[in-house]
Amino acid sequence: MTQEHIVVFQPSGVRGKVPAGTHLRAAARSLGVEIESVCAENATCGQCRILVEDGRRGGVASALDHVTPMGVDEQEFFAKRTKAWKRLGLDIERLRLSCQAEVCGDVVVFVPESSRGNRQIVRKSATERLIDVRPTVRRYYVEMEPATLAKPLADVARLADALVEVMERVGDGANCIAPGPDDLRFDYTVLRRVSDAVREGDWKISVAVWNDCEVIDIRSGYHDEAYGAAVDIGSTAIALYLCDLASGEVVATESMMNPQTAFGDDIMSRMTYQVDNEDGLAALHDAVLTAVNTLLGRALRRCKLEVDDLLEMVVVGNTTMHHLFLNMTTAHLGLAPFVPTMHRSLDIKARDLGIEANPAAYVHLLPIEASFVGADNVGVLLAEEPHHQDDELLIIDIGTNAELVVGNRKRLLCTSTPTGPAFEGAHIEYGMRAAPGAIERVRIDDDTLEPTYTVISVDDEESPQAKGICGSAIIDAVAEMFRVGIIDSSGRFVERTDLPRIRQGEFGWEYVVAFEEETSIGHDIPITIQDVRQIQLAKSALYAAAHILLREAGIQRPDKVILAGAFGAHIDPTQALILGMIPDTPISDVYAVGNAAGDGARIALLNRDKRREAMELVGAIQRVELPVDPDFQNQFMLALNFPHMAHPFSSIAHLIPASEPDPVAQRFLDLHVNDPS
Amino acid sequence: MTQEHIVVFQPSGVRGKVPAGTHLRAAARSLGVEIESVCAENATCGQCRILVEDGRRGGVASALDHVTPMGVDEQEFFAKRTKAWKRLGLDIERLRLSCQAEVCGDVVVFVPESSRGNRQIVRKSATERLIDVRPTVRRYYVEMEPATLAKPLADVARLADALVEVMERVGDGANCIAPGPDDLRFDYTVLRRVSDAVREGDWKISVAVWNDCEVIDIRSGYHDEAYGAAVDIGSTAIALYLCDLASGEVVATESMMNPQTAFGDDIMSRMTYQVDNEDGLAALHDAVLTAVNTLLGRALRRCKLEVDDLLEMVVVGNTTMHHLFLNMTTAHLGLAPFVPTMHRSLDIKARDLGIEANPAAYVHLLPIEASFVGADNVGVLLAEEPHHQDDELLIIDIGTNAELVVGNRKRLLCTSTPTGPAFEGAHIEYGMRAAPGAIERVRIDDDTLEPTYTVISVDDEESPQAKGICGSAIIDAVAEMFRVGIIDSSGRFVERTDLPRIRQGEFGWEYVVAFEEETSIGHDIPITIQDVRQIQLAKSALYAAAHILLREAGIQRPDKVILAGAFGAHIDPTQALILGMIPDTPISDVYAVGNAAGDGARIALLNRDKRREAMELVGAIQRVELPVDPDFQNQFMLALNFPHMAHPFSSIAHLIPASEPDPVAQRFLDLHVNDPS
Repeated sequence: MTQEHIVVFQPSGVRGKVPAGTHLRAAARSLGVEIESVCAENATCGQCRILVEDGRRGGVASALDHVTPMGVDEQEFFAKRTKAWKRLGLDIERLRLSCQAEVCGDVVVFVPESSRGNRQIVRKSATERLIDVRPTVRRYYVEMEPATLAKPLADVARLADALVEVMERVGDGANCIAPGPDDLRFDYTVLRRVSDAVREGDWKISVAVWNDCEVIDIRSGYHDEAYGAAVDIGSTAIALYLCDLASGEVVATESMMNPQTAFGDDIMSRMTYQVDNEDGLAALHDAVLTAVNTLLGRALRRCKLEVDDLLEMVVVGNTTMHHLFLNMTTAHLGLAPFVPTMHRSLDIKARDLGIEANPAAYVHLLPIEASFVGADNVGVLLAEEPHHQDDELLIIDIGTNAELVVGNRKRLLCTSTPTGPAFEGAHIEYGMRAAPGAIERVRIDDDTLEPTYTVISVDDEESPQAKGICGSAIIDAVAEMFRVGIIDSSGRFVERTDLPRIRQGEFGWEYVVAFEEETSIGHDIPITIQDVRQIQLAKSALYAAAHILLREAGIQRPDKVILAGAFGAHIDPTQALILGMIPDTPISDVYAVGNAAGDGARIALLNRDKRREAMELVGAIQRVELPVDPDFQNQFMLALNFPHMAHPFSSIAHLIPASEPDPVAQRFLDLHVNDPS
Repeated sequence: MTQEHIVVFQPSGVRGKVPAGTHLRAAARSLGVEIESVCAENATCGQCRILVEDGRRGGVASALDHVTPMGVDEQEFFAKRTKAWKRLGLDIERLRLSCQAEVCGDVVVFVPESSRGNRQIVRKSATERLIDVRPTVRRYYVEMEPATLAKPLADVARLADALVEVMERVGDGANCIAPGPDDLRFDYTVLRRVSDAVREGDWKISVAVWNDCEVIDIRSGYHDEAYGAAVDIGSTAIALYLCDLASGEVVATESMMNPQTAFGDDIMSRMTYQVDNEDGLAALHDAVLTAVNTLLGRALRRCKLEVDDLLEMVVVGNTTMHHLFLNMTTAHLGLAPFVPTMHRSLDIKARDLGIEANPAAYVHLLPIEASFVGADNVGVLLAEEPHHQDDELLIIDIGTNAELVVGNRKRLLCTSTPTGPAFEGAHIEYGMRAAPGAIERVRIDDDTLEPTYTVISVDDEESPQAKGICGSAIIDAVAEMFRVGIIDSSGRFVERTDLPRIRQGEFGWEYVVAFEEETSIGHDIPITIQDVRQIQLAKSALYAAAHILLREAGIQRPDKVILAGAFGAHIDPTQALILGMIPDTPISDVYAVGNAAGDGARIALLNRDKRREAMELVGAIQRVELPVDPDFQNQFMLALNFPHMAHPFSSIAHLIPASEPDPVAQRFLDLHVNDPS
C-alpha cells in the first residue's frame, strides 16, 4: 500500500492526506484548493508556483525536503527567472512549481494570491464585495508533437487536439470547460497564421481562447499577455479601464469628454441631430468610435502594450449611446412606443466595429433594459446586485439622463427620466465640468451669509483660482442658499439690498459665490435665479420618477438609496435631501458609489457568469414608462418646490403645489419628457 | 363528426382522406407530400400554388368548387399576378394557393415542380443522379405585429419571435429546423438595419437565414432573391456557377484562366514563387481573389442581380489553391511531412475574405483530404459518390495535378501525382487551351499517314483556321502516331524520309498535323519528339499513381474508371487506353464526367447535408503518399513506354522497362515528384 502524507494549504488552511508521489497541484485539486496553470503542468508557465513552509505549523512538521527535489524542467524554469524574482523579494529558496514537486513527507504549502485558481478582486460599494476573476478570454500554452510522415495530421487539427488536452488538464481551477476538438473554432485571422506560428515556435505556442470555444490569438513560444478594456460611454464623458484579464487588476484608467457633445448636450438633442442630418448617424458614430480608440490607444501606450494584446472589450452606455456606438439609428428610440433595436447582449468582432484591438477580439455589449434604461444601468445592477439582496434598494444613476431601479431579490422595476444637463454643470451660467479650477464644495454661513468654497486642484498643487462651478457645487450652493434663507421654498430670492453678494444681475436676482478678484476669469461667479430654476427642474424630475417607481413597486420607503454615477459620487447626500432630490431617507442609508456602470462593465469583463446574469436581469426587470404615466406631470409639478424647512428631511413639502402656473416647468416637460411624437 | 373527403395529389398520385375544412397544404403535409412556402401560409409568397383538376381522374370526381372560394387575401394575391401568369401560359382558372383553399369535396390536385417542397435537380454523371435542393441559405417572409406601448418589445426580439414562428410553420417541407428565438443570431450588418427595415416595410419584411441559425439579410416587404455561387479554382482555370438557391438552377456560368499562371504554370512553381518573394503570398492571393470577384461580378451583371443578392459561396480547389485563396502560406505543403494548415471545412464571412457579395454572406470551403488531395477532390467525391456504391471505382481528376481515388462504400484511398502541364496544352510546342482555333481531335489514316482534324469554333460559326493544339488533341495525335507506327512503343520516331509530314525539325523528329497554309498563325503545327516525351512523362506518372493506389487497396482491376476534370471530359477513352494512361479496363467501363469538382461545389451549395457528408469522407479516407512509396519511381520508369500493339488494351507492356536510362524522366521525377526538402 502506498504511504500517505498530510498536506496543508495556506492561507485557506485546508488539509488532507494524499498518497506519496502526488504532485502538489494534484493534491490541492483533490482537496478542493484551486491552483492556476496555463501550460497544463508542463513546468513552463510558472503560474502554479507555491512556497513550501519550513518548520512546524498547525501541528504539521514541514520541511523543504518533504517534497521531491527539482527535476531538469523545473530547474531550467527557475534558472531563467531567479534574478527577477529575487528583485521582487520572493523567497527563492522555498519557491517550487506545484505541478512538479511531489509529496514525500508531511508538508505545509502557502499558495500566493497570484497562483490561486479562483482569484477575486474587491469592488468597493455600498457593501464591499468580492468579484471572482473568471474572464471570458484566457491564455493557454501548448506544446505539440511535430507533424511526421507517419502521422501527417493538419496543423490546425494537431493544435486543436493538443489545446483541448491542455484545457482539460488545466481544468476547473482555471475556470474553463474544455470543448471537443471539433467544437473549437479558429478566427480567420488566427487560422491564416497557424502554420507559420507553430513552426516558428518549434511546435510550442501560446493561444488565447474566447468563451472556451474560439481561438482568437496565436503566438510562437510562451506568452501570457491578456488584456481587456471596460468602457463606459456616458452622454457627457467616456471612461475606459484597461484590465489584466489574468489578475483582474486595472492597469490603466483613461477618460475624456464625449465628443458627441458637439452635436448636442443631451441624448434628445443628439437623436434630433441624427434625424435632421443626412450624415448625422455617421457623424455621431464616428465621434464616439474615435474617442474609444483614442482612450484605448492611450491606455495601451501607457502600459507599453501592443494593439494585439487587447483581447476583449466590454461596453456599457445608455441605449442612445449603445446604438450610436454600434452605428444603429436612434430615430425610433425617442418616439412612442419607445422600443430599442434590441435588448439582448452582443458579441461583435472588433474589426467589424473598427475598434483598434486584436482584430479577432470581441466587443461585448451588455444587454439593454428599455429604450431609456440602457446597458449602463445593467452595469449598475451587476455592480450593486439588488437582485441578490433582501433590502429594498432605490438605485439612482445620475447623469444627463437619470436611470432608476427599485426592488430586491423578489422583483426589480426600472425607469428613467431626463434631468437636463444642469447636474453636469451645463446650462448653468458659470457651470463647468468637475475639472481643475472648478468650485466643487460651497458652504454659506447662517449668520453672515458669506460663502466658503473649495476649488479642484491638479494633484497636490496649491488650490488654483476659480474658473467656474461644477455640478456638485451647484447642488451645494442652491441647497445652502435655501437653508440659510437666501431663496424660499418656491426657489424665489428673498429680495434684499443690504448685502453686495445678493443683487440684481443681467438675468434677475443672483448670489455671488466668488468675486472677480478671487477668479482666474476676471468675472464674478454668481448663482442666478435661472440656475436655481434649472436645479429645481432637474431635482423635480428625479423626485417624481422615484415617487412613481416606488408606488409601482408598492414600496413606502426604500431601505437604502444608492447614488451612482461620477456625479452621484460627488453629491453631498445631506444637500440632496435638503433640496428634495431623493425620497425621504435617513442620511445613514444613502450611499454614493461612484461610476457603478463602469464597475459593472469591468465585472462583466472579468467574470463570464455575470454576462448570463445580466441577460437574466434584463428578462426579469419590469419597465415603467414615465411619459405614459398620467401621474408623472402632476408629481413633477408638485416636486418643484423645496421641502419645508420645518421638516428638512421630509418630503411632505412636495405635496404643497407651487402657488402659480409655471411656464418654465411646462417647457421642461414639453422638451424633455412629453411624448415628442 | 366532421365529414371527410378524398384528396389526390398529382403527379405523385398520393391519396388519402382529410376532414372538410382542411386547407390543401395541410392536407398534403398530412399525407407526406411537401409543398413549398416562404410566407408561412400567409397568402403572400405564392410558392404553394397548385392546380385544381376539373373532371374525373383516378376514380375521383374533382371540381373547382370542391375547394372553398377565394377569400380577400387570396383574391388580392392573384389580382396582382394574373397578367404575368397568363403570359406564362398558366391555367389561371384552376390556380389556387394551397395554404388558403380548403377541402369541401373530393378533389384532385396537381402540384407543379416549382411548388414542390423537396425539389431535386439532375446531375449527369457516370450514373444520372438527383440532387435534393436543401440549401444552407433560405429566405423567409415575415409579418410582425407592430410594437405598441402596451408591448414595447425590442425590434430584434419581435423579429426573432415572428421569424421562428414562420420557420416552424414552413417546417420540414422547406427543409428547415426552427431554432429558439434566443439561438437565432443576427449578423452585425443586418442588426444595424433592423429598426429602419421593419418600419420602412410597415412591419413586413423578408430575411435570409443561414444554416437555420443566423439572419444574414433583411429587406422591407416581400423579396425572394436568393443566389449562391459555386467556384472551382483550378491551377489553370477558374469556373464559377451562379445558382438560384430556391430552384437549384444554374443561372450563369463564367470562367477564366487562373491569373496565378503568371507566377508559375503548376502548383510547385507557385509555392516556390511564394517562398522566394517577400510579397509572394499577397501577389498570389490577390490574383485569385480578383479573379473570383471578376467572375462573380460578371455573372451577377449578366443576371441583373445586385451584389447583396449573393448570399453564399462554396469554393473548391486543390490544397494549394485553397490555401492561397485564404491568404494562407503554402510554404509547408510541399515539404515533408506534407501537412496542410487544416483539413476541416470552413465558413468565413465574405467581408473578411474580401469577396464582393452580401457582406454577411458566408464563403464555405469544402474540407481537404491531404496536402496534395484537396477540396476539389472532395467535390469530385460528392459528385461521383463512390462511398454510396458497391462497384470499385477508380476516379482520376486530371488537371495540372492529378488526384486519384479508389474504392467503394467499404473504404476509400486517395493520392495525387503531378502530371506536368502537358495535358492542359502547356509545355507543348504549339499547345494551347481548348479555345476557338484549337485543334481538338486528330485522326491519322492507317495507310497514307495523313491526318484529319477538327478545330474548335465560336458557337455555330464556320470552323476557323488552326492556331494551335489543345490537350485532348495532343493525346489523340500521340496515340494515333503510335497506333499507325509513326512512333514506336518507346516513343521514338520510326525514321523515314518519304513523307514530308515526317521530318527533322528544330528539336529533332516531328510530325506535321497542319501545314502553314491551313493555319492562321503562318507556321506549320507539328507534334515534336519533345511533345511526345511530355505526354509520356505525364501518362506515366498517372499510370504509376493508379497502379500503387490499386495495389494499396488490394484491387486487381476497378469496375469503373471515371475521368473527371474539364480535360478528362475531352479525352477519348480509347486513346487513353492506347497510350496506357489508365489501367487496363473494358472501354465500356470508362466514363468521362467533366468538371466533377465544380459539380461537387454546386452540390454542397444546394444541399447542406452534403457538407456533413464531406467532413465524414475526409475523416474516413486513407491517404497514400507517393513520394515516400519505394515502388513509385520504379513503376514510373516502367510505365514510360506505350503498351505493345499486340495487346492494345493490355497494360502488360508497361512491365517491359525502357531499354536505356532516361535522363528526361529522372529530371521530371526530381522536379515534380521527389521530396524537394
